[in-house]
Amino acid sequence: MQFELTKDYLEQLNTAVESSSEDKILELIDGLHAVDVAEILDEQSTKEAKAFYDCLPNEMAADALVELDEDVRVRFLKEISSEDIAERIIENLDTDDAADLIGELSEEKQDEVISYIEDLEHASDIIDLLLYDEDSAGGLMAKELVKVKVDWDVATCITEIRAQAEEVENMYTVYVVDENNILQGRISLKKLILAPDNTKIKELYNDELILVKVDVEREDVAQIMDKYDLVVIPVIDEIGRLLGRITIDDVVDVMREEAEKDYQMASGISENVESSDNAWMLTRARLPWLLIGLFGGILGAQVIEAYEGQIQIHPEMAFFIPLIAAMAGNVGVQSSAIVVQGLANNSLGLDSLWKKLFKELLVGLINGVVLAGLIFAYNYFFTDDITLGIIVSTSLFVVIVFAAIFGTLVPLMLDKYKIDPALATGPFITTVNDVFGLFLYLYIGYLMYAV
Amino acid sequence: MQFELTKDYLEQLNTAVESSSEDKILELIDGLHAVDVAEILDEQSTKEAKAFYDCLPNEMAADALVELDEDVRVRFLKEISSEDIAERIIENLDTDDAADLIGELSEEKQDEVISYIEDLEHASDIIDLLLYDEDSAGGLMAKELVKVKVDWDVATCITEIRAQAEEVENMYTVYVVDENNILQGRISLKKLILAPDNTKIKELYNDELILVKVDVEREDVAQIMDKYDLVVIPVIDEIGRLLGRITIDDVVDVMREEAEKDYQMASGISENVESSDNAWMLTRARLPWLLIGLFGGILGAQVIEAYEGQIQIHPEMAFFIPLIAAMAGNVGVQSSAIVVQGLANNSLGLDSLWKKLFKELLVGLINGVVLAGLIFAYNYFFTDDITLGIIVSTSLFVVIVFAAIFGTLVPLMLDKYKIDPALATGPFITTVNDVFGLFLYLYIGYLMYAV
Repeated sequence: MQFELTKDYLEQLNTAVESSSEDKILELIDGLHAVDVAEILDEQSTKEAKAFYDCLPNEMAADALVELDEDVRVRFLKEISSEDIAERIIENLDTDDAADLIGELSEEKQDEVISYIEDLEHASDIIDLLLYDEDSAGGLMAKELVKVKVDWDVATCITEIRAQAEEVENMYTVYVVDENNILQGRISLKKLILAPDNTKIKELYNDELILVKVDVEREDVAQIMDKYDLVVIPVIDEIGRLLGRITIDDVVDVMREEAEKDYQMASGISENVESSDNAWMLTRARLPWLLIGLFGGILGAQVIEAYEGQIQIHPEMAFFIPLIAAMAGNVGVQSSAIVVQGLANNSLGLDSLWKKLFKELLVGLINGVVLAGLIFAYNYFFTDDITLGIIVSTSLFVVIVFAAIFGTLVPLMLDKYKIDPALATGPFITTVNDVFGLFLYLYIGYLMYAV
Repeated sequence: MQFELTKDYLEQLNTAVESSSEDKILELIDGLHAVDVAEILDEQSTKEAKAFYDCLPNEMAADALVELDEDVRVRFLKEISSEDIAERIIENLDTDDAADLIGELSEEKQDEVISYIEDLEHASDIIDLLLYDEDSAGGLMAKELVKVKVDWDVATCITEIRAQAEEVENMYTVYVVDENNILQGRISLKKLILAPDNTKIKELYNDELILVKVDVEREDVAQIMDKYDLVVIPVIDEIGRLLGRITIDDVVDVMREEAEKDYQMASGISENVESSDNAWMLTRARLPWLLIGLFGGILGAQVIEAYEGQIQIHPEMAFFIPLIAAMAGNVGVQSSAIVVQGLANNSLGLDSLWKKLFKELLVGLINGVVLAGLIFAYNYFFTDDITLGIIVSTSLFVVIVFAAIFGTLVPLMLDKYKIDPALATGPFITTVNDVFGLFLYLYIGYLMYAV
């Protein structure tokens, strides 16, 4: 039922591709979906992939390319002539996918490919779409949609829909516009089927419609479609003309990318990488955060060095250095993660900043009391060193409360100044809290031992 | 166009609710969607929310309850009589939402509510759905769908669809079954509209259909629908009978929950909490990981204590304790995050375990060489302590390589034994790597100074 790619299958296929036995290839890929074919292309060498691609039916070749990872696709498209891209791929794609794919080519190749597109309307739609920022609603939308005029009757509509629907794979909904193409509402196919032929559209259509302007950011499109459980959303221009529509499958991709980006930020990975990327790409994505960590570690070393004399006299102070640093980091990451997620979901509620900070202070106080109490008990019962117990538990308490508030405040501030709050999670907040925590611990120790 | 809840609006509404002026309330909520109303209910006190709920039109009341957060809904439903739940809410919901909502009530109240449902078919569908595990396809599916028999003609179909469609809000697709309700394929409304009335369904329908069995886990349903860009997927039983369908909006919720869970795990939060939850819930979600961190810190303290004499002679060893611990933690979290995400997306590719570990080793080696080199240079130029420089850079190198491999291996192993690999991220991997890193650092120092 579902395809699972195995080494065995891949070998069979590559043998068939090598010996150019097209029948065998078509037999092997019978029943596969474009996304399965993309998975195969991804596992093949460029040479194998090119030969396999040449044997694919045009529509399958086009859809499979759309499903490839962007970096793999960009590499692969370099191997294919502009004429082939235009005729086998672009002509078989919806405008949104076609524009995305063309947008990934070099300027030169873009012009070449467009000049080879035979369907002039398709070409002009694609050129329109290329104008929009790829992170906006315009960058997500497709031009393919089915629309009817508000003063038509049901019979005219059905005839019109028959004509328009040939180009539109899934129509979901039929939009209703006026004579100037200004969006008025929508009408479901269900309603059209159920209504008598001579009913006027203006009596049937639903004028309550959630829509987006073409310049809305794609994260906001995703949030609206998710919030209102929409499968498709129309896109309008400044004066309300219907430009296109965005479907849920593209938005699901946006949502996944955003979630992955936040997750990677929290884990200290700075570029969008996958486990299957090569070692060099993985290193490049990871090294920047590690350098921040290294820098923080050096700062920490200098803080401790300032108290070297004290550690020589009281080497037991060193025991709890990792504990203080680790707890400061953990609490900070927790606090910032909750804020980042709240900002991403728009679920922060109506509470004022002060109320949020007060709640976080409360959480910090409870956690601080519990953990400081436990570490004091440990020192009291197991090390018998009351002074050290007091130093460690006092500084742990202060550090936890500070880290909780700092971890909440930083992402809120970043968001206020339109910087991605996810930057605040992961190594950054850990490092700042580490260094501050160390300083505090050693300073409190200095005060206590001086008494 | 889009509703934004403000304090001002909330006050107006609450005043209207208090004075029971229904007209004013209806005016205020005119044009709002159920999800907006849910947002209002979430910000009101229980008393206000109850009074507001009483004024809502039935369908709106039902839909708004479905959109509430589960914990708020559970609290709220306690205030409402079983009869009211059955008549105002359940009767107005699709079977999937109805079953989810009833599943949240106490056993007793479940029976009471079901006994009050007047539409017996609706009640029996809900009882059927309550049998399925809520984490399975059965727990996600709705019974409402439109199906036609394979031996009908188009005219019969359209008549049948008119009848069935009244109960189904969005039909998306029409399923084709045989006389035993065994799923044969699907037919799009578009095709039905375009075909002549006397065409037989068996000549029109598409028998290539992606479907799921009723006992498939909900994460897998989400993955299939995402992979194949599906808006709706049919659910069958063991022998292929059509039981229901799952729509993309429910699956988007599953995807978001899964992504949030992984994110929270990586940030050391053990329960699904939101920024708007109360301080006690937030503390409960955070304390467990902090206790693990505390335990790790105590282990770390014992490791350092074992080398107390050495630190007394060489207090400069203490300077780099936080650096080693922090870097070990960061590298481990990065490695495990990439694996966890690869497992979640099924994008690990066909490489064998050994090849993955080899690549991770390579990444670790590159990062290790760069960072160890930098820290050696720092010591060489700024502290003039070559021995310490060698100790710190050697142990940093070993710790980075170890943490990279350990961070990769642990989630892969957990996944193999069907344990959620996300457990391996965040505080757990940090703590283990911290303690091991410390031990290694001090041991290498001990060896070097003994020379």
